Order: sequence, then C-alpha cells, then structure tokens
Amino acid sequence: MNGSPERMDADLLEAAVREARAGRAEGGIPIGAALFHVDGTLLGAGHNRRVQDGDPSMHAETAAFRNAGRRPTYRDTIMVTTLSPCWYCSGLVRQFNIGRVVIGEARTFHGGHDWLAEHGVAVTVLDDDECVGMMTEFIAAEPQLWFEDIGETQ
Amino acid sequence: MNGSPERMDADLLEAAVREARAGRAEGGIPIGAALFHVDGTLLGAGHNRRVQDGDPSMHAETAAFRNAGRRPTYRDTIMVTTLSPCWYCSGLVRQFNIGRVVIGEARTFHGGHDWLAEHGVAVTVLDDDECVGMMTEFIAAEPQLWFEDIGETQ
Repeated sequence: MNGSPERMDADLLEAAVREARAGRAEGGIPIGAALFHVDGTLLGAGHNRRVQDGDPSMHAETAAFRNAGRRPTYRDTIMVTTLSPCWYCSGLVRQFNIGRVVIGEARTFHGGHDWLAEHGVAVTVLDDDECVGMMTEFIAAEPQLWFEDIGETQ
Repeated sequence: MNGSPERMDADLLEAAVREARAGRAEGGIPIGAALFHVDGTLLGAGHNRRVQDGDPSMHAETAAFRNAGRRPTYRDTIMVTTLSPCWYCSGLVRQFNIGRVVIGEARTFHGGHDWLAEHGVAVTVLDDDECVGMMTEFIAAEPQLWFEDIGETQ
C-alpha cells in the first residue's frame, strides 16, 4: 500500500477487478467489490452472484459486505467496486456509514454515488478502462441479464 | 384476500410478523418481511439473519427478496415489512422498482420510506401495536445488537 494516493486506489481496485473477472469466468455478471479497512487490510471481497446462486440479492457490494462478516462500525472502511453502486448498494453504504467509496467506472451505469457524496461519503471515480470494457462487452452480449440485475424492464 | 383494503393490508402484514416472531424465537432481531405479488400471492418471506447466520447483509427485506428468487420485474410486487426500511432496504425497493411498500410501524425506527414515497412508491404505514411492541422490547433488551444492525455507533 505504498506510493501515491492514485497508485493506492488502483491497488484497491485490483481486488475488485479480480472478483469481476472471476464472476464473468463463472458465466455471471462481471461486477466485483472489496471492503477494505482504511489501513489497507482486506476485510471481504465478492462478486455478483445472480447467475451462480440464483440469488438476486447478491450484488458485488453486498457480497463483499457479507463476506467481511459482522462489524461494530464501518466508518473506518472503504467500499471498492468496479461499477457505480446502484441504489440498493448505495443504500448499503449510507446505512452502514461506510466512509469512502472507490469506483472503477460510472460510464456504463450511473447509480447513487452522487447522492452518497451529498451525504458526506468520500467518493472517487477512477474511470478505469478495464472496468468499462468488461461491462460494455457484457451488456452487449447479455442485455436481458443486465436489465434484470438492475430491475429495469425493457 | 377478501375484504376491505385495511383488512387486506393486515393480512399481508401477518406474513411479515410471523417471520419477525420466528427470528426472535431463534435469538435474532425481530424484523420480518414478505414479498407479495399484487394479486396476493406470496413470492418470498424472510427475517433478519445477522445473529443466526452471522450475516450482516440479510435484513428482513433482503431475505424476503432473496427467497423470492429471480424475477424479470418487481413493479407488480408489494414489499411488506414489520419496520420502516433502512436506507439499505429502501435502496433495494427503489432500484428494483417495487411498486408498493406496507410497513408495520415507523415509531421505533424511521428509515427511508418518505424518500421512497417521493420517488413514486406507494407507501402505507399501519402503526401496528405488535410490531411496535416487538421492537421496543428488543431494543431495550439488546441495544448493542440493534445499533450494530443499523450501523450506528453509540
């Protein structure tokens, strides 16, 4: 975790990108997330599990949150996600007072991260090319699955 | 599902209350929820599973949503919950365009239901005495567990 803030954010994002790649390799939706302590310790990571488990409640962020287990506070944590968090996952961040969110990209989907910033969450959008590429390819290949995952009816 | 709208809402709430009672009997947090189709068909029900599964991501509403399985749309569904939904669960309702929310009570906790109403969700608060009683008793008995479940630091 040494180096510039940009380098550190890129290191954090890599943990989420690994999850997204793993999810796609399993035939699932390529969105990954990781919850870190502010000291750089990984607390939990996960990826979208709609296809793998038939579970619509497991978005990447909720999977990372679940895998981190029970904690008394989240103010000292960072949620790192490959994609702008939807309202469901933005609500998770706000309710549990997660202090900071690092987002791979917000081009292919713009969720609730502006709302989080308005409510005091530190938000960083990295505009990462690999994240954009994974989602662009996925949405083109499986639009119905994508719309299902965000509750949109075509 | 016959009778007046109030009677129908009370019938829907009973499914969520049963879940809350079951959760408390297991030593957990007494919040229950049920997702119904607008025709009255029960799609899924569940209760908070923080204690039972060590899973902070399973609030009552997310458990009911998970247990309903994958669906292409939620506009024709009603989320029934014993307690005003927190930001996490309100975000779930908004993202998936769940059309209506029926809430047992909002006295012991006031979540995001006003925000949902502002965004077009039909919200009904029943102010049910049993729901108020379960939460009042629980919060008095286990305040630390309650604050953990809503991400608040005492």
